[in-house]
Amino acid sequence: MVDVGGVAIGGGTWVVIAGPCSVESREQLLDVARAVKQAGATLLRGGAYKPRTSPYDFHGLGVEALKLLKEARDLTGLPIVTEVMGVEDVDLVSEYADMLQVGARNMQNSPLLRRLAQSTRPVLLKRGPSATVKEWLLAAEYLLSGGNPNVVLCERGIKTFDSELRNTFDIAAIPLAKELSHLPVIADPSHGTGRRSVIPAMSRAAIAAGADGLMIEVHPCPERALSDGPQSLDLAAFASLMKEMERPSRPRAVPSP
Amino acid sequence: MVDVGGVAIGGGTWVVIAGPCSVESREQLLDVARAVKQAGATLLRGGAYKPRTSPYDFHGLGVEALKLLKEARDLTGLPIVTEVMGVEDVDLVSEYADMLQVGARNMQNSPLLRRLAQSTRPVLLKRGPSATVKEWLLAAEYLLSGGNPNVVLCERGIKTFDSELRNTFDIAAIPLAKELSHLPVIADPSHGTGRRSVIPAMSRAAIAAGADGLMIEVHPCPERALSDGPQSLDLAAFASLMKEMERPSRPRAVPSP
Amino acid sequence: MVDVGGVAIGGGTWVVIAGPCSVESREQLLDVARAVKQAGATLLRGGAYKPRTSPYDFHGLGVEALKLLKEARDLTGLPIVTEVMGVEDVDLVSEYADMLQVGARNMQNSPLLRRLAQSTRPVLLKRGPSATVKEWLLAAEYLLSGGNPNVVLCERGIKTFDSELRNTFDIAAIPLAKELSHLPVIADPSHGTGRRSVIPAMSRAAIAAGADGLMIEVHPCPERALSDGPQSLDLAAFASLMKEMERPSRPRAVPSP
Amino acid sequence: MVDVGGVAIGGGTWVVIAGPCSVESREQLLDVARAVKQAGATLLRGGAYKPRTSPYDFHGLGVEALKLLKEARDLTGLPIVTEVMGVEDVDLVSEYADMLQVGARNMQNSPLLRRLAQSTRPVLLKRGPSATVKEWLLAAEYLLSGGNPNVVLCERGIKTFDSELRNTFDIAAIPLAKELSHLPVIADPSHGTGRRSVIPAMSRAAIAAGADGLMIEVHPCPERALSDGPQSLDLAAFASLMKEMERPSRPRAVPSP
Repeated sequence: MVDVGGVAIGGGTWVVIAGPCSVESREQLLDVARAVKQAGATLLRGGAYKPRTSPYDFHGLGVEALKLLKEARDLTGLPIVTEVMGVEDVDLVSEYADMLQVGARNMQNSPLLRRLAQSTRPVLLKRGPSATVKEWLLAAEYLLSGGNPNVVLCERGIKTFDSELRNTFDIAAIPLAKELSHLPVIADPSHGTGRRSVIPAMSRAAIAAGADGLMIEVHPCPERALSDGPQSLDLAAFASLMKEMERPSRPRAVPSP
Repeated sequence: MVDVGGVAIGGGTWVVIAGPCSVESREQLLDVARAVKQAGATLLRGGAYKPRTSPYDFHGLGVEALKLLKEARDLTGLPIVTEVMGVEDVDLVSEYADMLQVGARNMQNSPLLRRLAQSTRPVLLKRGPSATVKEWLLAAEYLLSGGNPNVVLCERGIKTFDSELRNTFDIAAIPLAKELSHLPVIADPSHGTGRRSVIPAMSRAAIAAGADGLMIEVHPCPERALSDGPQSLDLAAFASLMKEMERPSRPRAVPSP
Repeated sequence: MVDVGGVAIGGGTWVVIAGPCSVESREQLLDVARAVKQAGATLLRGGAYKPRTSPYDFHGLGVEALKLLKEARDLTGLPIVTEVMGVEDVDLVSEYADMLQVGARNMQNSPLLRRLAQSTRPVLLKRGPSATVKEWLLAAEYLLSGGNPNVVLCERGIKTFDSELRNTFDIAAIPLAKELSHLPVIADPSHGTGRRSVIPAMSRAAIAAGADGLMIEVHPCPERALSDGPQSLDLAAFASLMKEMERPSRPRAVPSP
Repeated sequence: MVDVGGVAIGGGTWVVIAGPCSVESREQLLDVARAVKQAGATLLRGGAYKPRTSPYDFHGLGVEALKLLKEARDLTGLPIVTEVMGVEDVDLVSEYADMLQVGARNMQNSPLLRRLAQSTRPVLLKRGPSATVKEWLLAAEYLLSGGNPNVVLCERGIKTFDSELRNTFDIAAIPLAKELSHLPVIADPSHGTGRRSVIPAMSRAAIAAGADGLMIEVHPCPERALSDGPQSLDLAAFASLMKEMERPSRPRAVPSP
């Protein structure tokens, strides 16, 4: 069980980390923070430093975003999860964030993992897009053996031949990682599928498979998002997802006598 | 909605197709049939003709197995699902089976699909291990456009770099296939993962994702199975899986006020 | 070493199988046959029965195409390689073809393999898009153990996450298959890459890796081809490829003294 | 064309970068350096900082290895290629190395790429195991657009379903990357296949496909190597590979008249 700013991850209930892919402005962030809090989210996510495939893409507002995240926490009480991209940023990001995220591209960045092993902040370790479950657990071992016991894993989809969705969301990795370790596992159906319409079904599936929480991208206006628009839910869709998670499951067919 | 020997697939409830990978003997099949019926299964599966990677593996008992499947149906009332491997076997298998399965290796066997398009039996079309969802739906289109409207899809895992499980069980393909077509979709976590310990979690996940049923391999003594032992449940494990499917899901963490 | 209508495959030299993906008309086939013969090809390929992903695509001219292939052989002396898709077609296709091709989708069609094991025709066994080298060799074992020693393997690319080319052309499978068996191995850079511009480089690479031959799709007018246009060479490009294969390789850099 | 310590990469001839995976001792490195120089290598590789999947594996000798690499250059005249793993090491490694390697795990480490964009050293950018060619070129774009024009790409295999070799060596990526950019491309058949027996065939194939050079792991005693033993050549095998690269290719079969 990992404590993140007062929220327990891995203790039998499941949490919801929600927020925008990137922090884009004060208004955007605070709107989302208020809305996800009201809908039932337990932590707030938001990218200040964004790893991107192209150097010409938006790379985040940096320290300005960190300050806005702090303001959002003050406003809503939600602990903050945000990504740290390099050894040189760990101290700064730790001043503002309650949980430090290691992105999928950095899962095997061993200098970064070694540095975070010495941090007092809990770490959310995303699975690399081509990492096996064992490679993922060995990456976690850099943190654990280096002295940081507060590690939460995050399944976010793997790269396969099937390009109809952004990634193949490997839900079986959730029970497998829990069987091979004792770490909590969060699921990110936003990156895991990249397609808004299947996020509710995959959120239910991940929790049914034993995930200790969900990480969901939410944006007030996904069409105008500077990153990950197609997989972001708007405020209403997120509220509706949270309600749908409470829906009882369909009944089994009754066999003939 | 597809009717298979009186059982409706795709009508809002979910079904369970259970039974051994291969029919190996009268005793084995009837034991399994009785046990899965009692535990709540709605259809019986069992392989008479087995496609195998190696020519030296067990390839099924053929027509003898078909006769045993008929006997098991007479005994339990469970409709029979079994694989047909070639055009030349369609008539014979249709005499005994209520639903004809097209195996993953045959998903793009167009002569077989064209022949089954003219059958009056419903068809269970397994997804090929390297088929995209669109290729799968185009394979179904051979059946539909050829005159057989009774098609049920079956997700059974795809081949990816991750070899820790037998396949990567692509649960997101279930809501995607249902969004892109109107066909019922069954999930096969036995082949989808190849690992007994994760089958209960993945069964719950598949139903939570919207699957119209499960296909589960059950054997009285998996260690002695002639095929697919490591992914088969024994009779007690299957009964326990069926009970676990009724278990309410864990609660969401309550946010701080 | 396998003899195909007088041409030896696997005897230390390398052969070229060239021709259209599908036989579309008498004029198209004879034009290609004459041109590839003149450019140095040793065998003629051409599809009479075409497996296709969609039921609405062109599926070949069937027996009419077989007759045209025979006419092309009479005209050019080139032995004929063509695909057979089902058990029910083996006798008919064998009347016209010198070598029977098993397509990638049928690599694990065991009824077809068992039938071809009893044929006196040599078989060209294409690797399935998600088959490991061992699975491919086990498919060949259906032919060998069943009585047909005249098997030639054909590497044609595998399905991976990289969708920039149609397939990932797995050239390392060529020396690996030759190390693990004693069968000749042909390479098909047309399907292996799906992109005309890289076919010459990949043809040179495959031969340098030890392939016993190439299979190249050639069409008089690729833009109008009924199948596989983007990967087909026109007559001039094929002649130019054949010349380029003779070009000496670039020199190694001379180290400083 | 990129100049590395006096050796031109990409100028019509092809180079050979050879050396041990990790620098393990003075004797090991100098033995290899002398032997590869004599056999015709043009640059020397050797790992000082090793990214490893497990925290319990050997991670390199660090600065001690850098000093040994300098000594080996003084002895043989071969320019040095070695990996730099983090922003914080760039200055130190640049003091000793002629070319800075970005490892496959770091291909999308944008802080590192941005830092190297400001370096005067040429950069060898390895392709990530799940990177498409376009993602690889966009990673190069971080270097190019940031001010460092001296970028050489290195294909080293991708992760696919086929686990018989360590990676799938994607030789078609070589002509494709050269078509889509103007950067030189080196091939690494040691990592690309992970299997000693196929390295000669794949070296010939890569050069035939247009690669501007090879990167080959060589160790005096591969069975005792602290990393990558199964894919390392011993000194005699490397010398023999270099001779085999000069061997004329097999002749094409002469068609019958």
